[in-house]
This record gives sequence, C-alpha cells and structure tokens, in this order.
Amino acid sequence: MNVPVRAHEAVPASPVEALSAILSSELTATDAEIAASLHSPVGLIPDVAHHLVDAGGKRLRPLLTLAAARVGGGVGPGAIKLAAAVEFIHTATLLHDDVVDGSSLRRGRKAANLIWGEKASVLVGDFLFARAFNMMVATGSMRVLDILARASSVIAEGEVMQLAAIASGEASRDTYLKVIEAKTAALFAAACESGAITAGASDSDVAALADYGLQLGLAFQMVDDALDYGGLTRELGKNTGDDFREGKATLPLIIALERADGDERLFWQRVLARRHQPEELGQAMAHLRRTGAVEATVEEARTRIKAARAALDRLSRQDIVTALLGDLADYVAARVS
Amino acid sequence: MNVPVRAHEAVPASPVEALSAILSSELTATDAEIAASLHSPVGLIPDVAHHLVDAGGKRLRPLLTLAAARVGGGVGPGAIKLAAAVEFIHTATLLHDDVVDGSSLRRGRKAANLIWGEKASVLVGDFLFARAFNMMVATGSMRVLDILARASSVIAEGEVMQLAAIASGEASRDTYLKVIEAKTAALFAAACESGAITAGASDSDVAALADYGLQLGLAFQMVDDALDYGGLTRELGKNTGDDFREGKATLPLIIALERADGDERLFWQRVLARRHQPEELGQAMAHLRRTGAVEATVEEARTRIKAARAALDRLSRQDIVTALLGDLADYVAARVS
Repeated sequence: MNVPVRAHEAVPASPVEALSAILSSELTATDAEIAASLHSPVGLIPDVAHHLVDAGGKRLRPLLTLAAARVGGGVGPGAIKLAAAVEFIHTATLLHDDVVDGSSLRRGRKAANLIWGEKASVLVGDFLFARAFNMMVATGSMRVLDILARASSVIAEGEVMQLAAIASGEASRDTYLKVIEAKTAALFAAACESGAITAGASDSDVAALADYGLQLGLAFQMVDDALDYGGLTRELGKNTGDDFREGKATLPLIIALERADGDERLFWQRVLARRHQPEELGQAMAHLRRTGAVEATVEEARTRIKAARAALDRLSRQDIVTALLGDLADYVAARVS
Repeated sequence: MNVPVRAHEAVPASPVEALSAILSSELTATDAEIAASLHSPVGLIPDVAHHLVDAGGKRLRPLLTLAAARVGGGVGPGAIKLAAAVEFIHTATLLHDDVVDGSSLRRGRKAANLIWGEKASVLVGDFLFARAFNMMVATGSMRVLDILARASSVIAEGEVMQLAAIASGEASRDTYLKVIEAKTAALFAAACESGAITAGASDSDVAALADYGLQLGLAFQMVDDALDYGGLTRELGKNTGDDFREGKATLPLIIALERADGDERLFWQRVLARRHQPEELGQAMAHLRRTGAVEATVEEARTRIKAARAALDRLSRQDIVTALLGDLADYVAARVS
C-alpha cells in the first residue's frame, strides 16, 4: 500500500513564527544578550533564571519590542538590549508571581519555587529586575528608562491590587480591568512603545504602537483567564482551574456572577470568600456553561483585538510586519478554541 | 527638697543627629518626596510601606546621599530625589529580607510579613524598587541610574550568595566579605557616590566618597554581626541570636571556628549544618568569649573605619560635614560597646 507523501507541504505558520522568522537574527542577538546578562559568579542565579528562560515561552514580549522597532524605523543595538530587558522584567514577575500564587507548574516545568525554594525565587527575581535596569541604562535612552520604570511600578501595583481584591472577595469588572491593564497590558504596551522609540519613530507611530500593545495585552489576559476554565473547548489541562482554586475574580467568574440565579450566586460568593473546595470545579464549569460566561469573556477579548488592529491602521506605513502584528492579535484570541 | 534643674544642659549629639541638624531642611524635603512617592490608589501599598518607613530607622543611607552632595558642591533637587530613591531601595530589600529570613521583628515593630503576609511583602517590595527607579529617572542623570542599577543587582547577587552559603554550610572569610560588600556596603557606596555626582563633584572627590561609603558599609555590617551576639557588652536583646538561629556564617562565627578546639569545631559545624537548637545560644556565647571572636570582629570593623576616615582625608575640601562623616564612622563602631 502506497501512502502518498507530500514533500514540502506548506505548513501554515503562526504569526508568531512568521514574525520570529523575519526577525530571526535580531532574536538570536536578543538570546545572546539574555545569556550574557544572566552570567553571575553566584551559580544559583543562572540555574534558576535559565530554568525559566530556557523553558522557552514564546518570547512574545521581546518579539513585540523588536517588531515595534522594525516598524518604527529599524532594529538597532538599543532595541536588542531593550528586548532582553523586557524579557527579564517579565521573568522576574513570573518568579515572584509563582511565590505569591504558590504555583507548582510554570511553562510545563516544575516551578522554580518548588525546586530551589521560595527564597531563591524572590532573590533571583530581584536580581533579574535590577539587571533589566542595567540593560536599559546601556540603551542610553532616558525616555525608554522612564517608560519601563513606570511600567514596572504599575505591574507591582496591579499585583498588589489583585492580592487585595482576592483578600476582600471583591468581584467587579472595574477592578478586573484595572488589574489586568496593570499586571499584563502595561508591559505589552511598554514593550511596543519603547521599541518604537529606540528606532526614532514619530510620536504618532509611537502612540499607535503603545495602544496596540495595550489592547493586545488586555485581550491576551482575558483569553488566558478564559483558558483557565478550559476556553471554548472546555478542555481542562494541567494548568486549568488555578484561578478557581485561588478564588480569583477573573472575567469568566464576574460574568457568571452577573448572570447567576440564586443558587449560583451563593456558589460564587462562597468561591470568592474562599470557602470552596477545589473539587467543585466541575460545578463551576456547569454554571459557566449555563451563563455563557466563557464565550462572553472571549467576546470581550475580541473587542480589544479589534481595537489593537485599529491602532495598527493608524501607523504611517503598512508592511508585512504590521500585517503580521495584526494577525498576531487574532492569533491570541484563537488560542481559546 | 529642691532638685537642681539644669536648663539647656548640652546633650552631646551623635554625629547622625548633628548631620541631620545641618541637613534638616534637605531631610524634610526627602521625607516629603518619600511620602509623595508612596502614594498609590492601592491602599495596601502605603500601609505596608509606611509601616517600615515611619518606624524610623535612622535614614542613614539618605543622610549619606545628602551629606555627599553637600560635600560635593551642594544639595539640589536631584539629590533629594536620589536620597528618597536610596531609602526605597533599602526598604524594598528589608521587606524581601524579612520574607527570606522569616523575620518576626523589624525596627522594633512586628515585621510586615507577619502582619500583611509574605505575598504583600514581596509585591510591595517590588513596587518600592520600581518606584525608586522612577525617582532616579526624575534626577535626569544617566550616571546616577547606572550606579544605582549596578548596586541593585549587586545587592541581589549578595543576597543569593548568602542564601547559597547558608544552604551549603560554607564558612569562609572570603565569602563573608563578598556577601557583606554586596548586600550592605554596595548601597552605602552608591548612596555616597551618586550624591556627590548630583552635586557635580570632581572625579577624585566622587571616588573618595564612594570609597568612604564602601568602607563604612563593611564596618557597619561587621558591627551588626557582632551585635547579633550581644556585641562587646554581651547584652542579648530581642533581636540578638538571629544569625545563630539561621546558621549564618558571619564573622564572629568564622573567627570562633578558626580558633576552635576540637569540641568547639564540632559544635560550630553542627550550627553551620543547621542541626543545632536555638537554645544552644548560651554555649555559642561561651565559645565566642573563650576565643575572643566578637572582639576580633570589632577589630576588623575598626580597620574599615580607619580606611573610611582615610578616604575622607583625600577630599579636596575639609569642613564640618566631612568632620562629622568621620565621626559617623567611629559612631558606627561604638554601637557595640
């Protein structure tokens, strides 16, 4: 029996892969910058940091910085350093987040806090954060430093806001939007904005790219929060159910509560008060299904995706990179289905 | 019976008080900058931060920044922002240290990690650290940012080095000196160096003040480590015995181990392996007394005090502030007796 072999069949590349291919030498340079900056005579630092950095992730934020620089006029050495710095800030927040959330998994690997302990995660996070500022100083741009320093304090503010919201059992759209704008979207926005600045982009192009990053970041976090309840396919994996277990008031829960009947309302209030059991996830999923809360969350994300695309339309020049940034926004929303 | 009342009796002011009096308006401005920068719509942030900042401490590091600026040519608005930033970096490290050490007391108050939890301490520490960089950006000096960003990564590196040393049960002078230079002296040095830079001091004056800060910081930490075993008076207070309990290889322990007889060596090795009981502090004190280890630690600190004074002698100008900085160095060593 002959099975037909189709050689060189075109695999539809994701926009992340397509952008990574276009910016391949710049990403290689960014990885070299990351590896060089992780160097320390204190072996525990590269051990912990490489564990996270090498686990991959998609290097989404540095990719945004490089793409924004390309769109803004060209990727110079400053943009490379900046892309590495953005990844360091992100990795530092992951290390601290995992301590705060008591996470056991990160990027499919055992979380650093479980391998080396919470102390190492706190201190290596501090190191990465400080080292990020070293790299930003090396760009020589005070404007870039200003943007990233502001973003860094906004991120921390967002994390504290979320902690306070969990403690108080508060569930409101207003607080949710503030939290995700601060803890996630601010870094996406700063990555794009500062990348464009290193390339000497015009003020209107810088503002458009910052807005694109902000909207993309909001959509990204909403989709993440939908995925925590299995997304549209309702497939529950190893990482799902974390927000439910922690009693986090993410958008699916908030919408389900808005649309709840009497019993459901009591159920969600018990979750927010963290008087629930992790085993009640099945019941939560049933309530989410009845109220269409995950679908409504994805709809909210799609509104931000449209806004992200509209921001790109304001750019002074359209090319393959701007087109791929638009596709990237859709791709973020497509993760749920 | 008439008790004679001596009005306006001259109280000999400590050099900290004397410097604070000379720089009184600048310290007030620094406190205002600190209060303004602690502002956040997220109430938990000012709550946690004020708990530490208001508990006082001596504002030693901002005082050094202001004094170095004064010596270097004058205290401008940049030096005020910088002094506040230095205090923020210090406070951030205290919050994270207390999480790492599981501390229960800080500056005579219940530690923040015990009141608001470790999560809040980690995240508010991150916020203060980021906000410190906001303030440094506001100074407009890339050189200042470079120095403080380097110092910040060195501090984190020192903390990780200490963590690794505790885990491995290592006890060496070489590692000890590296750890205290990184975790304590680097910020003292950066506080002085960057303060002088904001005032436009000459390169040789900047270098002399940086060296003064470094030597002062080394002495400060050695004295702190001697005080953890009661200092020269051997008075044990609420805060003493922490290093012993944690099995930290500080200089008193290292010297006692160098001079130990057979039984003592076994005792200290057990402490370093953290197979000891906190109740054995009395025995540790006896071994320290026999070997003169605390006295030898204080002698090492005095060598650094002399070096700090020698650095001041290299300054291009001598005045009341430089004289008080010299006295401040002696005052640091005098805390032990």
